[in-house]
Amino acid sequence: MAWQERISEAGARIAAHVRRTPVMQVELAGVPVALKLEQMQHTGSFKARGAFNTLLQTAVPEAGIVAASGGNHGAAVAYAAARLGHRARIYVPEIAGPSKIALIRAQGADLQVVPGAYAEAAARAAEWRVATGAMEVHPYDAEATVAGQGTVMAEWEDQGLDADTVLIAVGGGGLIAGALGWLGARRRVVAVEPETSCALHAALGAGAPVDVEVSGVAANALGARRIGEICLGLAQAQGVQSVLVRDAAILEAQALLWRELRQLVEPAGATALAALLSGAYRPAPGERVAVLICGGNIAPDPLA
Amino acid sequence: MAWQERISEAGARIAAHVRRTPVMQVELAGVPVALKLEQMQHTGSFKARGAFNTLLQTAVPEAGIVAASGGNHGAAVAYAAARLGHRARIYVPEIAGPSKIALIRAQGADLQVVPGAYAEAAARAAEWRVATGAMEVHPYDAEATVAGQGTVMAEWEDQGLDADTVLIAVGGGGLIAGALGWLGARRRVVAVEPETSCALHAALGAGAPVDVEVSGVAANALGARRIGEICLGLAQAQGVQSVLVRDAAILEAQALLWRELRQLVEPAGATALAALLSGAYRPAPGERVAVLICGGNIAPDPLA
Repeated sequence: MAWQERISEAGARIAAHVRRTPVMQVELAGVPVALKLEQMQHTGSFKARGAFNTLLQTAVPEAGIVAASGGNHGAAVAYAAARLGHRARIYVPEIAGPSKIALIRAQGADLQVVPGAYAEAAARAAEWRVATGAMEVHPYDAEATVAGQGTVMAEWEDQGLDADTVLIAVGGGGLIAGALGWLGARRRVVAVEPETSCALHAALGAGAPVDVEVSGVAANALGARRIGEICLGLAQAQGVQSVLVRDAAILEAQALLWRELRQLVEPAGATALAALLSGAYRPAPGERVAVLICGGNIAPDPLA
Repeated sequence: MAWQERISEAGARIAAHVRRTPVMQVELAGVPVALKLEQMQHTGSFKARGAFNTLLQTAVPEAGIVAASGGNHGAAVAYAAARLGHRARIYVPEIAGPSKIALIRAQGADLQVVPGAYAEAAARAAEWRVATGAMEVHPYDAEATVAGQGTVMAEWEDQGLDADTVLIAVGGGGLIAGALGWLGARRRVVAVEPETSCALHAALGAGAPVDVEVSGVAANALGARRIGEICLGLAQAQGVQSVLVRDAAILEAQALLWRELRQLVEPAGATALAALLSGAYRPAPGERVAVLICGGNIAPDPLA
């Protein structure tokens, strides 16, 4: 089945469970840009799309769902599981921080905070899966996940997207893979990664997925150590460019979104915009650019 | 000239200067509701509409503009004046607080922080107007202001608003007057006021504008001591109901907008929603409700 068809089916499957997030045309720092406010999705990021698509197209075992996640994916899986009546056990690394841990806990999951970083949580989740037969939802490198994330681009086109180029932040690559799967060659998709967390950039250079060190202000959302194979395949086939941005540019874009638009997003949610504002990506004259705002789970919680 | 015509003209006049703010349909606490995110307007509230409409339809004197405001109106006037190349002197009461004072200063106005409350700032602004011939922009009770604010409702209908009833927070009444002027009897408009700052409610009871005490969490935006006469006239003619909400309900609605939608707004911006969520306004079965999110200038600044 072609990606467009998978994504169309995913869109129909999840329609009753996800929000149609708003879009707008705006000028920021003198640059016209189309925005989609996907951080307004359930649990504050696009991740709910892939989670629902996965859970709705699979027979979930009695043992329920298991996931390891430092944040947005874990919250989305926990939310989708709760809405669909499944048990979910989420392994969260301690370094995720209290805001994201509280967000996941609020979804009603069986939350297991694991000392250390993501790798430890992933190991514990795998043990649980083997021991119980629980189903694991991959955060980015699974067909159902990618097809679910692709619905955000299908929805944006249905809302009248008017752009030559779409800038998308990349961590493990589930979101951009979905966008590439949906758009094909119809529009240009540009990947944006933090300089200190650039698994796609490294893989495009090496010609294969390679492990990278991850750090920086957006690492708790974009800090995949290795790009997904689905993403890399689509990116190579479509000649995608990966643009790198500094942490300082990400923080400036985050501040501008608040100062100019009263949108308070996490650093990962401002990363794609950072490429445009910092000049890391320079549109040609007349090129119409769109930026997907992908996540809003800022820490600390501003109302806590 | 009828209000609809004035508002149509205002819409054409200000189109190049204001944002078309996004709308969405969402379910909050189990209640379906249409939202318009007007806090994404320039300077974080709908006030930019009235400010631009006023400045664009008047010959601004050499002495420029003067306004007294503790917040959103002052920021909007300062912004509009700067964009149109006029000098603006804004008198701000000290109690407005550092966030709103910084917001106004950032627009490039000649900012005068006045000890005390709004009345002192208004007195100083009046002195300046008399001494210099500067033009004063009224925050709510002037035809040009009301026509400008009415464009938000015209825009929402153009964006496909699907609602029987629109809930609007009321301070001095400029925004709701514009909505009433535009909608006439086509949709029901419900006023929402804080219990501790309810100039329209008091005026509807007394049959004429009366002075009220103002306090509470939304007072720095909704704390008008006396309702505007334009607003009261339209509200009486159209039989508008004013629903009162407690501060606690406003803060709960504010928290829910962040928790569920990642929209961080000031208390005034959550006041209309509070009526729906607290049950102060109970829709009839099948009644489709819309809520205008009108301001986002929260204090303290979450990124400061």
